Amino acid sequence: MSVAVGVIGTGVMGSEHVRILREETVGAHLAAVCDASEDRARAAAGENRVFTDALALINSDQVEAVVIAAPDAVHGSLVLACIETGKPVLCEKPLAVTTAEAFEVVEAEVAKGQRLVQVGYMRRFDPPYIEMKRVREVGGVGRPVILHNVHRNPVAPEWFSGHMSVTNAFVHEIDVSRWLLGSEMVSARVHAAPGADPLMITMETDQGEIVSTEVFMNCGYGYHVHAQLVGINGTIETASPGITLRNVSGQHNSSYPDNWVPRFREAYVRQMNAWVKAVKTGVPTDGASAWDGYLTTAIAEQIVATMAFDAKTHFSVGSRPAIYD
Amino acid sequence: MSVAVGVIGTGVMGSEHVRILREETVGAHLAAVCDASEDRARAAAGENRVFTDALALINSDQVEAVVIAAPDAVHGSLVLACIETGKPVLCEKPLAVTTAEAFEVVEAEVAKGQRLVQVGYMRRFDPPYIEMKRVREVGGVGRPVILHNVHRNPVAPEWFSGHMSVTNAFVHEIDVSRWLLGSEMVSARVHAAPGADPLMITMETDQGEIVSTEVFMNCGYGYHVHAQLVGINGTIETASPGITLRNVSGQHNSSYPDNWVPRFREAYVRQMNAWVKAVKTGVPTDGASAWDGYLTTAIAEQIVATMAFDAKTHFSVGSRPAIYD
Amino acid sequence: MSVAVGVIGTGVMGSEHVRILREETVGAHLAAVCDASEDRARAAAGENRVFTDALALINSDQVEAVVIAAPDAVHGSLVLACIETGKPVLCEKPLAVTTAEAFEVVEAEVAKGQRLVQVGYMRRFDPPYIEMKRVREVGGVGRPVILHNVHRNPVAPEWFSGHMSVTNAFVHEIDVSRWLLGSEMVSARVHAAPGADPLMITMETDQGEIVSTEVFMNCGYGYHVHAQLVGINGTIETASPGITLRNVSGQHNSSYPDNWVPRFREAYVRQMNAWVKAVKTGVPTDGASAWDGYLTTAIAEQIVATMAFDAKTHFSVGSRPAIYD
Amino acid sequence: MSVAVGVIGTGVMGSEHVRILREETVGAHLAAVCDASEDRARAAAGENRVFTDALALINSDQVEAVVIAAPDAVHGSLVLACIETGKPVLCEKPLAVTTAEAFEVVEAEVAKGQRLVQVGYMRRFDPPYIEMKRVREVGGVGRPVILHNVHRNPVAPEWFSGHMSVTNAFVHEIDVSRWLLGSEMVSARVHAAPGADPLMITMETDQGEIVSTEVFMNCGYGYHVHAQLVGINGTIETASPGITLRNVSGQHNSSYPDNWVPRFREAYVRQMNAWVKAVKTGVPTDGASAWDGYLTTAIAEQIVATMAFDAKTHFSVGSRPAIYD
Repeated sequence: MSVAVGVIGTGVMGSEHVRILREETVGAHLAAVCDASEDRARAAAGENRVFTDALALINSDQVEAVVIAAPDAVHGSLVLACIETGKPVLCEKPLAVTTAEAFEVVEAEVAKGQRLVQVGYMRRFDPPYIEMKRVREVGGVGRPVILHNVHRNPVAPEWFSGHMSVTNAFVHEIDVSRWLLGSEMVSARVHAAPGADPLMITMETDQGEIVSTEVFMNCGYGYHVHAQLVGINGTIETASPGITLRNVSGQHNSSYPDNWVPRFREAYVRQMNAWVKAVKTGVPTDGASAWDGYLTTAIAEQIVATMAFDAKTHFSVGSRPAIYD
Repeated sequence: MSVAVGVIGTGVMGSEHVRILREETVGAHLAAVCDASEDRARAAAGENRVFTDALALINSDQVEAVVIAAPDAVHGSLVLACIETGKPVLCEKPLAVTTAEAFEVVEAEVAKGQRLVQVGYMRRFDPPYIEMKRVREVGGVGRPVILHNVHRNPVAPEWFSGHMSVTNAFVHEIDVSRWLLGSEMVSARVHAAPGADPLMITMETDQGEIVSTEVFMNCGYGYHVHAQLVGINGTIETASPGITLRNVSGQHNSSYPDNWVPRFREAYVRQMNAWVKAVKTGVPTDGASAWDGYLTTAIAEQIVATMAFDAKTHFSVGSRPAIYD
Repeated sequence: MSVAVGVIGTGVMGSEHVRILREETVGAHLAAVCDASEDRARAAAGENRVFTDALALINSDQVEAVVIAAPDAVHGSLVLACIETGKPVLCEKPLAVTTAEAFEVVEAEVAKGQRLVQVGYMRRFDPPYIEMKRVREVGGVGRPVILHNVHRNPVAPEWFSGHMSVTNAFVHEIDVSRWLLGSEMVSARVHAAPGADPLMITMETDQGEIVSTEVFMNCGYGYHVHAQLVGINGTIETASPGITLRNVSGQHNSSYPDNWVPRFREAYVRQMNAWVKAVKTGVPTDGASAWDGYLTTAIAEQIVATMAFDAKTHFSVGSRPAIYD
Repeated sequence: MSVAVGVIGTGVMGSEHVRILREETVGAHLAAVCDASEDRARAAAGENRVFTDALALINSDQVEAVVIAAPDAVHGSLVLACIETGKPVLCEKPLAVTTAEAFEVVEAEVAKGQRLVQVGYMRRFDPPYIEMKRVREVGGVGRPVILHNVHRNPVAPEWFSGHMSVTNAFVHEIDVSRWLLGSEMVSARVHAAPGADPLMITMETDQGEIVSTEVFMNCGYGYHVHAQLVGINGTIETASPGITLRNVSGQHNSSYPDNWVPRFREAYVRQMNAWVKAVKTGVPTDGASAWDGYLTTAIAEQIVATMAFDAKTHFSVGSRPAIYD
C-alpha cells in the first residue's frame, strides 16, 4: 500500500526530500538512498538500503518510485532509466541540461505511452501561487496583462557560473509563469546589469501578456521570491512570507529566509504528497510534466544562446505530443 | 507500526480530524468513527468501522488511540474512559465543563501513573505562536511585560450562550498565554461592553506580566486571532495570515478566514502528527496536558463566577502533581 | 492681516512652534520669543523681539496671540494672564498641573464670556486620527465598542518622575479618546507592570465603550503611537507612519521615529494653521478647549490619586459651562 | 515681501495651485488668475484680478511670478513669454509638447543668462521619493542596479489619446528616475500589451542601471504610483500611502486615492513653497529645470517615434549648457 521511494542525491535538496518522505508524507516511505559518497548516503538512509550506483537503485525491486536530486548533469539520463524500467519519477529541475536531452525524455515517455515523469517545479504547489492561479482562473482581477516576477537570492552559490541565473534560477519563472497564466511564452529580451547580475528579462506570451522578471543572484539581503499578476481590473500578488512581525531597534520588521528551503517548505511537502498520490492512482498531478520540463529547458537555452546580441529571442519549441494534453 | 486511531464526533472539528488522519498524518491511520448519528458516522468513516456508542469505540480492540471531538458536555467522562482502558487520548478543548470534572481527570491520570491525555489547545502548534515563544525564550524582545491578545469571531454560533465567550473562546487565550509566557495566571478582571460582547479581560501573572485580551464573538468582519508580546526591548506579534494581497476596487487588501479551521489548519495537522509521535514514543508533546486543561477550565470557571461583581478575581487552583513536571 | 504671535518657551516643543510659525504657517508670523534664558530666546528669535519675562511678552502690544510651550508648572498662570489681556492662546498640554488650577482657567474664560484658550492636544489634527473619527461618525465600522490605544516612548526623559506616565503621556489618550468617540470617560482601572511601566489603563465611557490603553515610557524600540477603534461591523486603526520600506540584512523593515516631533509634525502644522485661522475668524477650531484641558487634567489626577489602591476610579468632573457647547 | 503670484489655467491642477497659494504657501499670495473662460477664472480668483489673456497676466505689473497650469499645447510659448519678461515661472509638466519647442526654452533661458524656469515634476518634493534619494546617496542599499517603477491610473481621462501614456504619464518616471539615480537615461525598449495599455518600458542609464517601468492608464482599481530601488545590498521602496487600515467584510484593507491630487498633495505644497523661496532668494530649488524638462520631453518623443518598431531606442539629447550645472 505504502509506496517504496528511492532518493538519488543527498545534497541540500535530496536531504530535504528524505526528511519529507520520513516525516511529512502520507502513503509512501523511504526505501533506499543513493549517493556517490557511500558515507553521505548511509548518513541519510538511516535503516534503509544504500546505493552508490544510481542505476542500481532505479532497477532495485525494492524501489517502486524514484526521486532524483542528483547533480543537474545526470538528470536526463537517470530519468530515461526510470522510464525504461517503467517507474514513476519525480526529478528535481531542470529535467536535463540540454534541450536535446530533455526532448529525448519526452520522446521516451511518448514511446512508452505512459506519463511517468514529474519535474520538481515546486512553486506549482506553493499556496500563494495556487491562490493566485485560482483567482486568475475565476477572473478575479480580469484578463491578465502583466506578470511581474522577482527572484532574489542573497549570494550566488559557489558552483554558480556562466548562465546559471537563466538555466538554474529563471527556469522557475518560465515554468510558473506558463502555469499561472495558462499561456505559452513566445519571445524574450534580456537587459543585464554590469556583471550580468541582476538580469531583467521580458517575455511575451501567445495571449499578449507581458512577463517581466528580475533575477538577482546576489541581492544581498535574503531569499525573496515575489510575483504580482496584473489584470485589467486589479492585481494579486504573493504576500510576505513572514509569520511574525517585530518592533525592535527603531524598526518594524519581518524576516526573509536565507534560502529556498524554508520559503518553499510547504510547497515541497505538498508536491511530494501529490506525487505519491499520483503514483498510486496513475492520474498525473498539476505538477510539471516532461513536456513542461522540456519547454522550460528549451526556452532557457534559447535565451542563453542569444542574450549577448541585445535582440529579441523568438522561441521555437515544436508542438506538444497528445500524451501531455 | 501505524497507530489505529478512533475519532469520536463528526461535527466541524471531528470531520477535520478525520480528514487530517486520512490525508496529512504520518504514522497513524483512521480506524473507527463514532457519532450518535449512525449516518453521519458512516459518511465520515468511509471503509472504516462505525460506532454510535463512544464507550464501545474506546474499548474496541481495533482502536489504539482516541480523538475526542464530541460535544463539550461529554469530554470529561470520555477522557476518563480512555484513561481507564489505558489508551492515549487527544481531547478537544475544554477537557471538561466543570473544574471538578477536569480535576477528576487529573486525579485519574495521576492514579494511573501515566500521561495519557492531551488537550487540543492547538495554538501551541501554530507556527507564528511557536516563533513568538522561541523568540521570547531566547530573550529576543527582553523580559515580557504585556501580552495583548485579540480573539475575534465573525458571528457567534447559534449554540453560543451564557458565558461561552469565556468557557469556549477565552480558554484558548488562557492556555496559550500560560504557554507563551511560561507563567501562571493569578488574577483577572473583566470589562464587558453592552450585551457582554466584546469582553476585555485583564489577567496578571505570577511573574508580574499583564495579559490583556479582547474576546469578541460577533466582530462582524471575519475570524481574527492576534497576539502581541511586549518585552522591555521590543515586541513580537503574529503576522496577518493572508498569503496573497490584492489591489481591487480602490483598495489594497488581504482576506480573513470565516472561521478557525483554515486559520489553524497547519496547527491542527502539526498537533495530530506530534500526538501520534508521542503515542508511539510515550514521550508527551509540548501540547496541553490534563493539568493544563484542568487549570484553564478552573480559571475560566472562576472568572465566570465573579465577572458580574466588577471585582478582581484571584485564582485558586491548587498545586501541580509531579507527573506533570 | 498677518497675526503677530509670541512664543513662550524654547525647548524642543517651543522651538518646533517657532519653526512652524516661520516656515509653515499661513496668515501669521513670529513676533516675539520668550525664554528664561535670554541666550536661548535670542537664538530662537532671529530678528524678532526677545523677552525673558513671559508676562511682558503676553502684555506686549506687539503680540496679538500667544503660544505657551513653557514648563508645565507655569501653564495655568500664563493662560490666565492671556485671558486677562483678552489675547488668544495656544497652550501646550497640560492646561495646568492641578485640576483646581485648570478649573480656574475655565472659570476665568467663562467670566470673560469669550473662548480664548486652545490646548495643544495635537492628535486632533493628525490625519490618521481625523480619518478614524470621520469613519466613526459616518458609521463605517458600526457602533464603537472598544478603543485600543498604545502609547510607547523609547526611553523616558530624564525629568520623568512619579506619575508622569499618566499626567504627561496618558493625557493624550484621555483627550483623543473623548474626541474620537464623542463620549465621556466615566471610570478607570490601572494595571501596572513591575516598576509601574508599562501601565494598562482600562476606562469605561458614558456610552458603554471600553477604552484600553497601554502606556509604556521605556519600550526600547522607538516612538510608537497606535489606535484601533473596534465597532460592531469592523475596525479602523492608524497605519504605520513609515513612508518607505526597506529590504536589508535579512529583513523587510520600516522605521519608527525617535520621538513625537516627526510622528506628529503634520499635526502640529495643521494645529497651528487652524488656530491662526480661528484667531482671525473668532470661530474656535476642533482643537481642545479649556474645558477639554480641564477634564483631561481632572481625570488624570483622579487616576493618580487612586491607582495605588487596585480599585476602579469613578470620575467626578462637574458639568460643562454653556460656553463650551 | 510676499511674492505676488499669477496662476494661468483653472482646471484640476490650476485650481489646486490656487488653493495651495491661498491656504498652504508661506511668503507668497495669489495675485491674479487667468482662464480662457472668464467665469471659471472669476470663480477661482475670489477677490483677485482676473485675466482671460495669459500674456496680459504674464506682463501685468501686479504679477511677480507665474504658475502655468494651462493646456499642454501652450506651455512652451507661455514659458518663453515669462523668460522674456524676466519673471520666474513654475510650469506644469511637460515643459513643451515638442522637443524643438522645449529646446527653444532652454536656449532662451541660456540667452537670458538667468535660471527662471521650474517644471512641475512634483515627485521631487514627495517625502517618500526624497527619503529614497537620501538613502541612495548615503549608500544605504549599495550601488543601484535596478529601479522598478509602477504608474497606474484607474481610468484614462477622456482627453487621453495617442501616445499620451508616454508623453503625459511616463514623463514623470523619466524625470524622477534621472533625479533619484543621478544618472542619465541612454536607451529604452517598449513592450506593449494589446491596445498599448499597459506598457512596459525598460531604460538603461549611463551608469549601467536598468529602469523598468509599468505604465497602466486603465488599471481599474485606483491611482497607484510605486517605486522600488534595488541596490547591491538591499532595496528601498515607497510605502503604501494609506494612513488608516480597516478590517471589514472579511478583509484587511487600506485605500488608494482616485487620482494624483491626494497622493501628491504634500509634494505639490512643498514644491510651491520651495519655488516661492527660490523666487525670493534667486537660488534654484532641487526641482526640475528647463534642461530637465527639455530632456524628459526629448526622451519621450524619441520613445514615441520608435516604439512601433520593436527595437531599442538610443537617446540623442545634446549636452547640458553650463547654466544648469
